[in-house]
Amino acid sequence: MPYVNIRVTREGVTPEQKAALIDGATDLLVRVLGKDPATTFVIIDEVEIENWGVAGLPTAEYRRRMATG
Amino acid sequence: MPYVNIRVTREGVTPEQKAALIDGATDLLVRVLGKDPATTFVIIDEVEIENWGVAGLPTAEYRRRMATG
Amino acid sequence: MPYVNIRVTREGVTPEQKAALIDGATDLLVRVLGKDPATTFVIIDEVEIENWGVAGLPTAEYRRRMATG
Amino acid sequence: MPYVNIRVTREGVTPEQKAALIDGATDLLVRVLGKDPATTFVIIDEVEIENWGVAGLPTAEYRRRMATG
Amino acid sequence: MPYVNIRVTREGVTPEQKAALIDGATDLLVRVLGKDPATTFVIIDEVEIENWGVAGLPTAEYRRRMATG
Amino acid sequence: MPYVNIRVTREGVTPEQKAALIDGATDLLVRVLGKDPATTFVIIDEVEIENWGVAGLPTAEYRRRMATG
Repeated sequence: MPYVNIRVTREGVTPEQKAALIDGATDLLVRVLGKDPATTFVIIDEVEIENWGVAGLPTAEYRRRMATG
Repeated sequence: MPYVNIRVTREGVTPEQKAALIDGATDLLVRVLGKDPATTFVIIDEVEIENWGVAGLPTAEYRRRMATG
Repeated sequence: MPYVNIRVTREGVTPEQKAALIDGATDLLVRVLGKDPATTFVIIDEVEIENWGVAGLPTAEYRRRMATG
Repeated sequence: MPYVNIRVTREGVTPEQKAALIDGATDLLVRVLGKDPATTFVIIDEVEIENWGVAGLPTAEYRRRMATG
Repeated sequence: MPYVNIRVTREGVTPEQKAALIDGATDLLVRVLGKDPATTFVIIDEVEIENWGVAGLPTAEYRRRMATG
Repeated sequence: MPYVNIRVTREGVTPEQKAALIDGATDLLVRVLGKDPATTFVIIDEVEIENWGVAGLPTAEYRRRMATG
């Protein structure tokens, strides 16, 4: 009965990519731990990039600094 | 001081239903554990159905297969 | 397919109380939203009281101040 | 490698306030625990006020009662 | 910068299995969304089986009923 | 009514450090968003290091590789 929560920035993830994440995460739990896929949940949270911070900066600002080194 | 997080698919949950979930979850914590309702939080997350997977499939596809057995 | 996460302080919650929380939360989702209990998960997290803060204080200190008003 | 999740009601939090939350939470982890900011994540979830309950009531109703005493 | 949280019942998951879950989940995000593994977190929560409910029952009781049909 | 969840690896965080995290996170919400500390929750989750992965590796292995460059 695993529960998998995947949180990513909201940047145009397509339904096909979401389906691939759901399929892949479920398969991982089946393969590694022998879990039953029928009771495996995968929930994807898409987070606005201004709501996600790393290194003390909002994502957009973080990327700008990484890019300009 | 309980914290209750209810995650459901986003499918037209009404304000009245949300109020009933908040009331019912708070009442449950008061009744079973004697918690103080004043410091009981209930947060409802509505998740897009394409972001929720079960049995390795997005919810809509999962339901289609269940329906056609 | 709801997912309910109940977080409470770790203070001797009994297996019977946990079963009552699981039963009550599931029943709430069935009653209010017509969800299928077979795919309703309830997960209880017991949090050490020194890890839970309210009003800027760890729970034990918070309670002491409330008690002495 | 801390992960900080800040959940607040969705009520017009500005990008500047979000940046201040990200900066402040990261700084807190660096200052108190000596964590590396480069691997510190801060995610802000803005929750619709009708989805957040306290004292058994949705936030708007809770505030009305508090205001009228 | 994805964050993946895998919640499973605490039933003897080995360090090797945990490493496989971490590796597999990270690989999934790289493969499907092109994410940078360096900023991909995977956190595994092991939940006591009496704290996990499905179908309104604690896991152990749920399994007993499934087994006896 | 904010809810702040801080997740760190379990590596001897002291009660004093936990109190400082609770105080600092609450203060941040008061200062940046004008929130009421009385209804601000801070919950610290300490995660076993073998349960936390980054860059596709469990934390201990990740640190070893970082150290040896």
